[in-house]
Amino acid sequence: MEKIPGVKYMRDFYPEEMRLRLWIEDHWRQASLRAGFQEWDSPIMEYLELYARKSGDEIVGQLFTIAPRDADAKDDKRMAIRPEMTPSLARMIAARQAALPKPIKWFCISRMCRSERGQRGRLREFWQWNVDVLGSPDPTADAEVISVAVNALSSMGLTSEEVEVRFNSRTLSAAILAAVGVSSEQQPGIYAALDKRGKIPAEALREMFAKVGLESAVVDRIEEAMGCKSLDELEAFASNQKLSGHKEALANLREVERALALLGAGDWCRFDPGIVRGLAYYTGPVFEIFDRKANLRALAGGGRYDNLLSVVGGQPMPGVGFGMGDVVLGELLKDLDKLPSSAMELDDFVIPLDDERKWDVLEIIAALRRAGRRTDYASAAGNLGKLMKRADQLGAARVVLVGGDEWTRGNLKIKDMKNRTEAEIAVKEFLTHPARSS
Amino acid sequence: MEKIPGVKYMRDFYPEEMRLRLWIEDHWRQASLRAGFQEWDSPIMEYLELYARKSGDEIVGQLFTIAPRDADAKDDKRMAIRPEMTPSLARMIAARQAALPKPIKWFCISRMCRSERGQRGRLREFWQWNVDVLGSPDPTADAEVISVAVNALSSMGLTSEEVEVRFNSRTLSAAILAAVGVSSEQQPGIYAALDKRGKIPAEALREMFAKVGLESAVVDRIEEAMGCKSLDELEAFASNQKLSGHKEALANLREVERALALLGAGDWCRFDPGIVRGLAYYTGPVFEIFDRKANLRALAGGGRYDNLLSVVGGQPMPGVGFGMGDVVLGELLKDLDKLPSSAMELDDFVIPLDDERKWDVLEIIAALRRAGRRTDYASAAGNLGKLMKRADQLGAARVVLVGGDEWTRGNLKIKDMKNRTEAEIAVKEFLTHPARSS
Repeated sequence: MEKIPGVKYMRDFYPEEMRLRLWIEDHWRQASLRAGFQEWDSPIMEYLELYARKSGDEIVGQLFTIAPRDADAKDDKRMAIRPEMTPSLARMIAARQAALPKPIKWFCISRMCRSERGQRGRLREFWQWNVDVLGSPDPTADAEVISVAVNALSSMGLTSEEVEVRFNSRTLSAAILAAVGVSSEQQPGIYAALDKRGKIPAEALREMFAKVGLESAVVDRIEEAMGCKSLDELEAFASNQKLSGHKEALANLREVERALALLGAGDWCRFDPGIVRGLAYYTGPVFEIFDRKANLRALAGGGRYDNLLSVVGGQPMPGVGFGMGDVVLGELLKDLDKLPSSAMELDDFVIPLDDERKWDVLEIIAALRRAGRRTDYASAAGNLGKLMKRADQLGAARVVLVGGDEWTRGNLKIKDMKNRTEAEIAVKEFLTHPARSS
Repeated sequence: MEKIPGVKYMRDFYPEEMRLRLWIEDHWRQASLRAGFQEWDSPIMEYLELYARKSGDEIVGQLFTIAPRDADAKDDKRMAIRPEMTPSLARMIAARQAALPKPIKWFCISRMCRSERGQRGRLREFWQWNVDVLGSPDPTADAEVISVAVNALSSMGLTSEEVEVRFNSRTLSAAILAAVGVSSEQQPGIYAALDKRGKIPAEALREMFAKVGLESAVVDRIEEAMGCKSLDELEAFASNQKLSGHKEALANLREVERALALLGAGDWCRFDPGIVRGLAYYTGPVFEIFDRKANLRALAGGGRYDNLLSVVGGQPMPGVGFGMGDVVLGELLKDLDKLPSSAMELDDFVIPLDDERKWDVLEIIAALRRAGRRTDYASAAGNLGKLMKRADQLGAARVVLVGGDEWTRGNLKIKDMKNRTEAEIAVKEFLTHPARSS
């Protein structure tokens, strides 16, 4: 019979790959818990309407939708697999908004699907870590979510020489663009162009600017603003150009920067006026995380979204957060040779030396497991060389041999696989203190 | 704007519920790892064909299928959300069957969906723990998977007085049925009837037997066999009735029973000839786990399936395993008041006593988090009573107060929330040894 393949652009997690996924998830989880965030989750699917209302068109076009059971099923009950978590977050918070103590500090580690074209760093199923603070307009909240991302990356062995957080502010960009002569109708087109900056040739970028209908003098001023490498440079530029209207947003972003330094993330972060984020719902500071060699797509992206709750029928509430996927992160860790060993680890492997002892083996493994030791066994006697090789394959720290002369003497033989030493120990004593080797 | 609800018969996991889900998952995972099983996972969806080939009709009727992107999409590329893990397990093992060291001992903790009618113990999205051994025909493998289930339940605080494993053997049932005069064509109808035993009135059961076309003398003998409460009783019955053909299966099940006792699970398990399992693919020992009061649906079910790999195009390979869902288990733990506290836990909550100190707070929380402590903070000074209440809400073990006279002296005030004691400590010393309270 023909074999059936797994679904294309989705991954099978054999134990080796699963250990790596769990390793990443664990670092995400621990960094979140250390910062006082609480884990949440939503169903794998939501009513389609939730995505239609909140997300950009790009994401709605990538939805896996559920086939309706009945041909005449109502449209408003159609469902889709979640392509991101923010709509579910907004829905769940809106449902209990008054009752939840503020600020709401939540994280999730979530499976999601998008029907995109498969390519490097893009799969149709992936895991995303989301960290959000809702109910705090304070710039320390922006800095805190960034520092949680940095702490997780740092705990995985990545350094500020390998990874950087580029931050900006949508409010600041809007104020600067308005001051240099971009109308509010032209702004979305400019953001779309800025989002492509560095990803497409300078020529093509100028064409995008031209399409929006900007005079070349305005484009030059935008390019100059884009060239600012720090908030000081931007302030000097604004002062030279006698711009106004940007001061509040600048002061806010300076506070975010100050908080980042105090939280120990200063070396990881730099101001980059080119970061604007595609999604329409960002309203303040925004950021993206990249590998410094910029070989890969963004590791993470996020920002402040103060209008999100209103969109799902909740009360207005400030919010800030980010999402980090597992795919690009996994590639970066692999490229930098920072993935941990994916080998299995076992404490004990128990082998019967003759078939009569197979029943005694069961009592021994039960005692070892009760003592919390990770224990596997051979269900029958066999070629000892092969069985020892099996123990090695399983990463066993110790092998317990049941049978032979030792058994006749009421003893077990214990082999330490690391030090390659052996010891003989009485069965009774071993069952009472299974962690002792001699 | 109107609020959008979550999908019906699926659960939102607010942090309290999430902590309980993770608690259950952790007990499942630890019991599996202690027994030397390795974790795996598959995509949330598979090609429809995989389920059509392996699963019973009941499950295929409950699939959530993905709407095709193009109206003329080929049928063989249609996908469905996984309703169980066994088909994915078989597919993944078949793909690497020769290369995987045997026995293959795998477990998974998996989200899955079925479009069933919602009711107590049945939701449309749930988590299931699967534990499987492939490549071992040995009865110790059957006993081992059962003992892993028992160990997990025991680690959650359940006892053999509250929960029991009822085991039987499909081979044994088939031999007994054949010996008392049931033809192999009649057997599926009998299994369907036996599966309803105890769930429907005796009258209705006799009708089901009658429909299969059995003489009432045969039904009487089946009822007598069903009344056997142990393997000894069944053996005596077979001997009285001068039956033959059942001895091999009986001997095999006796070995499973012996292994269960040696693994310390004897008190939890009893032979029950009424356990036959609905699914067609079981080929040997089968079992289900129930609360002893039998108020709820089965907690888990499983058995031996030696033909599964062949169905997905693999080589024949013996297998045994079970699935345990989170919904019924959660209900039982709740009914027995054995769920752990779902309250949040925090090590430190740091409060600025005046707004100038909000920046110093950031340095302190960064140091605490670097030391591995779960730390949250107030981003601004405020009503101290309210902030202390917030610390309590968050389950903080300690509160660190930054400001006031202590700050002027270069110190911090530390409040131990359990013992309700206070101490003053130098900022420098605290930042060097953040775990020390005095």
